[in-house]
Amino acid sequence: MRVELLSIGDELVAGLSLDTNSAWLAQAVRRLGGTVIRHTTVGDRVGEIAGALQAARSRADIVVATGGLGPTADDLTREALAEALGCPLEERPEAMAQIEAFFARMGRALRDSNRRQALVPVGCDVIENPRGTAPGIHDRGPEVEIFLLPGVPAEMKEMFARSVEPVLLERSAGRVGCALSLRCFGMPESTLGDRLADLMARDRVPRVGTNASEGVISVRIVADGLAADEAAALVRADEAVVRERLGVAVFGAEEDTLATAVARELIARGCTVSTAESCTGGLIAKRLTDVPGSSAYFRCGYVTYANEMKESVLHVPRDLLIAHGAVSEPVARHLAEACRSQAGTDFALSATGIAGPGGGTPEKPVGLVFLGLATPDEVVVYRRQWSDTLTREEIRDRSAKAAMDLLRRCLLAGRPLLPSE
Amino acid sequence: MRVELLSIGDELVAGLSLDTNSAWLAQAVRRLGGTVIRHTTVGDRVGEIAGALQAARSRADIVVATGGLGPTADDLTREALAEALGCPLEERPEAMAQIEAFFARMGRALRDSNRRQALVPVGCDVIENPRGTAPGIHDRGPEVEIFLLPGVPAEMKEMFARSVEPVLLERSAGRVGCALSLRCFGMPESTLGDRLADLMARDRVPRVGTNASEGVISVRIVADGLAADEAAALVRADEAVVRERLGVAVFGAEEDTLATAVARELIARGCTVSTAESCTGGLIAKRLTDVPGSSAYFRCGYVTYANEMKESVLHVPRDLLIAHGAVSEPVARHLAEACRSQAGTDFALSATGIAGPGGGTPEKPVGLVFLGLATPDEVVVYRRQWSDTLTREEIRDRSAKAAMDLLRRCLLAGRPLLPSE
Repeated sequence: MRVELLSIGDELVAGLSLDTNSAWLAQAVRRLGGTVIRHTTVGDRVGEIAGALQAARSRADIVVATGGLGPTADDLTREALAEALGCPLEERPEAMAQIEAFFARMGRALRDSNRRQALVPVGCDVIENPRGTAPGIHDRGPEVEIFLLPGVPAEMKEMFARSVEPVLLERSAGRVGCALSLRCFGMPESTLGDRLADLMARDRVPRVGTNASEGVISVRIVADGLAADEAAALVRADEAVVRERLGVAVFGAEEDTLATAVARELIARGCTVSTAESCTGGLIAKRLTDVPGSSAYFRCGYVTYANEMKESVLHVPRDLLIAHGAVSEPVARHLAEACRSQAGTDFALSATGIAGPGGGTPEKPVGLVFLGLATPDEVVVYRRQWSDTLTREEIRDRSAKAAMDLLRRCLLAGRPLLPSE
Repeated sequence: MRVELLSIGDELVAGLSLDTNSAWLAQAVRRLGGTVIRHTTVGDRVGEIAGALQAARSRADIVVATGGLGPTADDLTREALAEALGCPLEERPEAMAQIEAFFARMGRALRDSNRRQALVPVGCDVIENPRGTAPGIHDRGPEVEIFLLPGVPAEMKEMFARSVEPVLLERSAGRVGCALSLRCFGMPESTLGDRLADLMARDRVPRVGTNASEGVISVRIVADGLAADEAAALVRADEAVVRERLGVAVFGAEEDTLATAVARELIARGCTVSTAESCTGGLIAKRLTDVPGSSAYFRCGYVTYANEMKESVLHVPRDLLIAHGAVSEPVARHLAEACRSQAGTDFALSATGIAGPGGGTPEKPVGLVFLGLATPDEVVVYRRQWSDTLTREEIRDRSAKAAMDLLRRCLLAGRPLLPSE
């Protein structure tokens, strides 16, 4: 089942907005047994859009187009589909009723321009949009089906589920395959690749591959084009092998983040955590509270950015700051210990380092960070020198992740466990 | 000058990697006087790539393709160009010399597979790649020029500058136009649109348009296809009008964020700030310290997530918490005041609210947030109810932005200035 994606909008063609819909749609299509063969992005011109729709229809079984269904004069996807199909537009009462109901619910006045959104090519179906004013359009062609969805991601995703998904599932007749991404942290990608080399051989089923993004390495296990049960069994078997070989480096799967992984382990043990941050500036606290329900384990964060605040808020002795500097093992240790004690939590994390771009010295270059972990029994400090190719934002991101990973490994092992580099 | 972009790679078509190259290239092309008319993404198959190259060539003056120039068996862009041009591949000594020099510089052994990277269609030029092993290819066709660049962004960008940029500049003969994005916050997009309606008329030069992303509204002013000086003068004139009509809602331009805007105003006045956060969980502190050099103004953040920590760390009276709840005007007020006093800063920001998805009640629904601003003279609290369509992440993001905007408006006006909704 060959699927083509078409993104419509001047802002996309001009590079002013990043097209995130296509990547989301491609993954969704794959999960439903289809294969995306091409994405095309064109601007808001009827001829361009109609031409792209016709070309896509000549190559694919299903075409999913997003964007250009709004109420303004540069929303021309409806007109383009009418041109591509050679069918005139008509105002459809069921579309008009949806639009009116939406405006009534929002307590907003319907504008004349919104009437345009009820125009649909003769013979096409209307796809309801519960989250916005733009109904979608579905052309059930005899060979190729075309779906037009809005470009707003939240609207597009919900309408995809109610319109495209059932068609894909029916067409793939259950041969939807199976795919799983395991998320790993704290093991170099080369080590990880060596441990999985036999699984990553070409033409093996399932296919196993790795890729790294923002410090997290993902291991993808994919069995395509098989019946769901069969594919799932193969993927599960590989998952067990990967988990056994990578051990504690695997922190979760799919949508898991280091924060959700830490949250899960803290909640399972009824434990609490607090944070004392310098270079990360609140990012560790922010990540730990990204997770809904984080008040179960997160109590307090201190962002002691200025040295005097390290002294006054977390009582780091001035002598220590003078003797070793704020970016040092003893200060990271003190911050974690004082944070745990003042917040009255089971664990505390600290971070002090040089995020750059300025502030580095030969002895303490940009990217040097000390991460502290205080437990009920001890305090450990992990020294990490990030690569000098990382930006300030990346150094802060990786440091926050490494700090959360320290706590995660400690919870799993029952004692602090520094990653071996 | 019509330009088409072609992105090549199975991982892009499958949605496993986001295509950020196309957006970057589209913006770069525009700055050099060209107009991108289409992006296409295809997988690693010779026929698909060759077909896409031919189709792009039939529509555009210049085609820029990225990806598929690596050493492995699924890197097929060279072969596809040869097929599209009807020219055989030949091993080019100057390409081989570059590859050998790169490996020598890195101290790595050349593999046989890297020899493939020296293959170039007869008649094409080699583009040097100083950062990697994959040389680029330039076909100087009589009517259409085709550039093949690697998919690795850092390599692609450097090679674009030395190969595509001079060709675009020569072809546009200095008629590179000018574009500016002004960033706005705290004014509804509809109000903003009404104030700029005459500027946003179609066919006016410069073109003026707005778009909203993550709560920030951008006003783009674009003068295309004109000589640089002339275009810049037109854009500057419109900029002055927009700034005058939108006033304090404009916080900056281009890469500015609310954090960089606040940082600029704090540094200009030699003022300091601290934060007391509940629902935002450290995000305001994180954003304020995103800016290099933030130690000049940011001193300390308190993330008092648990109610007992609001009591013990920032001394919110228990009676106040019991009488009004943690999410309330008096608690936001106390948090800001105590934070400012304890941290000894000129200003303090506080945030307490219900980020959801759980925890809402009819009286205090998800999305309700109180933002406090303490100044040397007074404390003000801004109550904001975010739309119930926003996610937890969005509520936290918008709240952090609104808090920073409170401070920014106060610094500009010399007194707290709540946004009128």
